Amino acid sequence: MTNLRIPGPTPCPPEVLAAMGRQMINHRGNEFGEIFKDVTAKMKQVFQTKNDLLILTGSGTAGLEAAVVNMLSPGDTVLSVSIGVFGERFAKIAQTFGATLVPLNFEQGQAAKPEMIKKALDENPGVKAALVTHNETSTGVTNDLAAISKIVKTAGKLLMVDCISSLGSVNVPVDDWKIDVAISGSQKGWMVPPGMTMLSVSSEAWRANESAKMPRFYWDLGKARANLEKGQTPWTPAISIVFAFQVALDMMLKEGINNIFARHEKMGNLTRQMAEGMGLTLLADPRYASNTVTSLVADRGLDVKKLTKTMREEFDIVLAGGQGQLEGKIFRIGHLGMVSEKDIFDVFDALKVALPKAGFTK
Amino acid sequence: MTNLRIPGPTPCPPEVLAAMGRQMINHRGNEFGEIFKDVTAKMKQVFQTKNDLLILTGSGTAGLEAAVVNMLSPGDTVLSVSIGVFGERFAKIAQTFGATLVPLNFEQGQAAKPEMIKKALDENPGVKAALVTHNETSTGVTNDLAAISKIVKTAGKLLMVDCISSLGSVNVPVDDWKIDVAISGSQKGWMVPPGMTMLSVSSEAWRANESAKMPRFYWDLGKARANLEKGQTPWTPAISIVFAFQVALDMMLKEGINNIFARHEKMGNLTRQMAEGMGLTLLADPRYASNTVTSLVADRGLDVKKLTKTMREEFDIVLAGGQGQLEGKIFRIGHLGMVSEKDIFDVFDALKVALPKAGFTK
Repeated sequence: MTNLRIPGPTPCPPEVLAAMGRQMINHRGNEFGEIFKDVTAKMKQVFQTKNDLLILTGSGTAGLEAAVVNMLSPGDTVLSVSIGVFGERFAKIAQTFGATLVPLNFEQGQAAKPEMIKKALDENPGVKAALVTHNETSTGVTNDLAAISKIVKTAGKLLMVDCISSLGSVNVPVDDWKIDVAISGSQKGWMVPPGMTMLSVSSEAWRANESAKMPRFYWDLGKARANLEKGQTPWTPAISIVFAFQVALDMMLKEGINNIFARHEKMGNLTRQMAEGMGLTLLADPRYASNTVTSLVADRGLDVKKLTKTMREEFDIVLAGGQGQLEGKIFRIGHLGMVSEKDIFDVFDALKVALPKAGFTK
Repeated sequence: MTNLRIPGPTPCPPEVLAAMGRQMINHRGNEFGEIFKDVTAKMKQVFQTKNDLLILTGSGTAGLEAAVVNMLSPGDTVLSVSIGVFGERFAKIAQTFGATLVPLNFEQGQAAKPEMIKKALDENPGVKAALVTHNETSTGVTNDLAAISKIVKTAGKLLMVDCISSLGSVNVPVDDWKIDVAISGSQKGWMVPPGMTMLSVSSEAWRANESAKMPRFYWDLGKARANLEKGQTPWTPAISIVFAFQVALDMMLKEGINNIFARHEKMGNLTRQMAEGMGLTLLADPRYASNTVTSLVADRGLDVKKLTKTMREEFDIVLAGGQGQLEGKIFRIGHLGMVSEKDIFDVFDALKVALPKAGFTK
């Protein structure tokens, strides 16, 4: 079987795939309603939140758009904290719908510096919300969200966080960290195919929603909340993915979220240790290296395209290249969701052969 | 097995469900690219179009929103032709994003009158686009789109059509009828689970897109077109549904689209004949009765809730109630996608027992 080691979509357990193959049911009927309420309640446990949790049909980027258009008005000023491609994307969405950006960009591979966020908020008292990426999938860096939250919430701003590749894999205590809108996506640590995005919404966020004027229809979170009371969605949902979530969430809660977080920490450490042992250079500042995805620098003659091709064709292992300005400059190993030590060992056994073939010299 | 006779989601063939259960692959890799291009090409055959065809992750309503925000600017005037809930929805979306409506509403159960559309366009020369529902799922009425198109296109307006519950089931020759944007959804005649929406875009629509100013990011069709050249999507797609489409489209092309249309016509006729034979009253004007869904009036003492409950609990047959102002006043039988004469006979065998139990007197 292919060892799919990209940072999403992640491999799905056989039980989850079986659920994907279930026959359709009426999305306005009781059976679906019970399942949808059960999925929502269990997902809240992983989000560690008592906030509303809304599950929409669309990909992770859709979740970022939903957060923006439900909470902001054209002309609102937002602090966009970016450490990579997905931070830029979040900012671009806000700008597209008419927000004014105060951009705070950090070098790729680095985490956001909380003191710089404090400075930016002090200098721009008109900022309404901060857009932050928790785990930047393009670089493999996890921001210190606890510290960032303290600053943003002390300043009284709305905190909207892209947790797409962190939630369900590493610890994101949404309520403890006072995240107003936390966004995730089905195809990451949740071990479910892509197609749904999930957002938790705090009472402060709902207050912002009341006066938010950006146009919204399909992504209207108020409509989603009203329909959820009946166990429904405003528009026909991706029923199969809801079935898959129910199975995957039972597996996750059986493993226990703290055990899941510990397993991901172990996988992150193992990947970094093995990579360094092989003479590879980590892109991420080691203090903030992600436990869901590791970026490795294409130095010492390494041709990324050749490497990923060799890994795929000779070893049936799929790695990811770099995105945006990092294309050709890094490769990435995903280690989130359904992942064990053996998967990581297999990757490095293959890299031992594939790296020299792709020009890498120790 | 449950006989799911609602107008979407429709039952999926076992081969399609098996495809839904396939393991994830890299959505940026060659394997996915080949599948996505193949699906797009085959779907174009069913759309009967040489226009661009874009497949997005979201439900049918998302497709309506994508059409609006990609082709219009705030302040544009649009003629919204509505014959039911979904016509109203299309109009509401345009209005939400800043369009000015010229509403042309027809009584529920009736088709739009082409001469009224001509009159409205003559009286409102500033109209940029007409929003039309081909098959109104809430009433079971199919508009005369050929006639409507002639009027709208002769007037030089953009024609955007909700074909969600018609395309893939009844004849919609997109190019012959000069439909600028035709929208469908995976969970209807396509025999695939919900989660993707598909839009064909004419060259005239692309010209409109160049100057259209409504904000868009996730639904940006220009980005979708650019990515399709590589066999990709701008954002992670619902991979499983693409797998399912590949299998379903092969089945559809094997049956032949004209045979599919003939089968739906037969199912529509059969349903109407059997309903009338049982003393039920058709909501739809018989000249425009839909071949994908039939609405039956809850007269002669019929309690719709009791009826759908009895059908479900005693016969394992799922029918739909009415939507919006028709709630409690009609019930609906879906006969689109994977449907045979036996499915319809089973429905009426059960109705023979269930109708009197639900208060219906002949």
